Amino acid sequence: EKFDNSNCSLFNDFTVKKVLREDPRSKTISLYGSLTKGEHKSADAVVLLERKPFEVPTVEESLHKTRTSETLSNDIYSTHDGFSPGLSADLKVTVICPCTEKHISKYSEHEPFLVRETPELYKTVTEPCMAQSKFSIQWVYNILEKKTESERIVEEDPDPDLGFVLLPDMKWDRKNVDQLYLVAIAHKHGLRSLRDLGSDHLPLLENIRTKALAAIKEKFGVASHQMRVYLHYQPSYYHLHVHFTNLRLDSPPGSDVLRAHLLDDVIDNIRSDPEFYQRTTISYALREGDELFKWYKKAGYF
Amino acid sequence: EKFDNSNCSLFNDFTVKKVLREDPRSKTISLYGSLTKGEHKSADAVVLLERKPFEVPTVEESLHKTRTSETLSNDIYSTHDGFSPGLSADLKVTVICPCTEKHISKYSEHEPFLVRETPELYKTVTEPCMAQSKFSIQWVYNILEKKTESERIVEEDPDPDLGFVLLPDMKWDRKNVDQLYLVAIAHKHGLRSLRDLGSDHLPLLENIRTKALAAIKEKFGVASHQMRVYLHYQPSYYHLHVHFTNLRLDSPPGSDVLRAHLLDDVIDNIRSDPEFYQRTTISYALREGDELFKWYKKAGYF
Repeated sequence: EKFDNSNCSLFNDFTVKKVLREDPRSKTISLYGSLTKGEHKSADAVVLLERKPFEVPTVEESLHKTRTSETLSNDIYSTHDGFSPGLSADLKVTVICPCTEKHISKYSEHEPFLVRETPELYKTVTEPCMAQSKFSIQWVYNILEKKTESERIVEEDPDPDLGFVLLPDMKWDRKNVDQLYLVAIAHKHGLRSLRDLGSDHLPLLENIRTKALAAIKEKFGVASHQMRVYLHYQPSYYHLHVHFTNLRLDSPPGSDVLRAHLLDDVIDNIRSDPEFYQRTTISYALREGDELFKWYKKAGYF
Repeated sequence: EKFDNSNCSLFNDFTVKKVLREDPRSKTISLYGSLTKGEHKSADAVVLLERKPFEVPTVEESLHKTRTSETLSNDIYSTHDGFSPGLSADLKVTVICPCTEKHISKYSEHEPFLVRETPELYKTVTEPCMAQSKFSIQWVYNILEKKTESERIVEEDPDPDLGFVLLPDMKWDRKNVDQLYLVAIAHKHGLRSLRDLGSDHLPLLENIRTKALAAIKEKFGVASHQMRVYLHYQPSYYHLHVHFTNLRLDSPPGSDVLRAHLLDDVIDNIRSDPEFYQRTTISYALREGDELFKWYKKAGYF
């Protein structure tokens, strides 16, 4: 490997000003600090660190050279602290330098707050916020019209009312089928979220379920009973789309009960009450930085 | 630190026979192999490896000595491979040696399968399996009767119909409030799962919600709008209990839409239809090793 800056580390003179976020489960940490980068002396930087997954081909050799120190021993069980021998890279490092306030905010922990959105709150807070936010979904139309990303399309049903485009989610590397993550985007415009769905849309929802699952089975060999299929509420953009993830992905981000709604349940709920999603109360988490959080705060909800 | 076996690693002569499970998100790997432990020469062992989270007090010093190698550079963004300097333990190692087939199975990947349990399937497959499994819940009764773990109780309402015991989940270290995880166990016997709940149990469910959230606010300073409160279906034991986790825990295991049912939604559903949980269809994932999986397979579901 060729190291940065000959013998010295990129982080030789790095000073931490603030820990922005820590996640012990994913073994990541986000730092704000200053470092020297090219002509920038002590420039502001956001540094993201993530420990790398273990690699099967090298794990045995690496273990041979791993020093251990016993922390507990009981019959057949023992636990140890281990010191990696540093034979291969064990960290993924991302540097944003020079950085701005916006980068710092993006990688900071924002306090989450639970909203229990009644139909009344939807009409008086959520819907007006959506109307004013003017969050552009031109990029979605560009995909549907094949202006961008057309080479990434896995499957398409071109019908304007029932059709959709199926493509890999950005979070999927498109190689490891165990981590398969695809998104089906409806061709139909104007369906902003679950709240807009009723019995008129059952044929669309059923068509997406059937045809996308058949395409996933055919192209990736993953059967429908090995897939988790859901919508988000709140969605990250206000145009109907459905998430398809491999069940082998254990609790992936976005499958949380506070965000994911199983497509099968959505179809059943609308079948038993065509106005289910106009009448029901839905819980979700907002974060301090979110526009919608500001509206709920202004409305006196928090 | 005092290292195991003077200069040599516990894993000096470790050979990998099989990779049992890998999880790139949590940076863990489970191995089956053989090693020398005390008088055991090449004994069968299960070895669990997990990379440790970053530690705030040492991360700056450690970064100063971290060698980096640039993998990508674009304007203000760059990514690098990093090599930890090995100053502190970066691995948590668990060894089970000698191990049996049961340990190997416990730490192996088992294929997940989706069940969509209709009321009919519940009656013909799930309920008979529960009846035959004779999975003991004596340990739950021991907690409720204060025979064990009484020093761990955070709050109790002793009422036999509406009461409960609130205590920390095993997964919580009881220190970091950001990761708070408590479980409320109902005093009432005989409520095996969601499927047994109806309008008679609304006072019990509401009492647990109100009093447990008040105790959490008082003892840990976490407000109700910062908590995720849910039941599991399938539960891990067939006695009514409710999970309370801090919203700051991002998609913790068990909060997946395929397992978690928000207590608020359960209460609303029973209010709108007292027999909701006897009439509804519920999706969940089973794994190849599960007893219930075998019953569904025998019934021809898979």
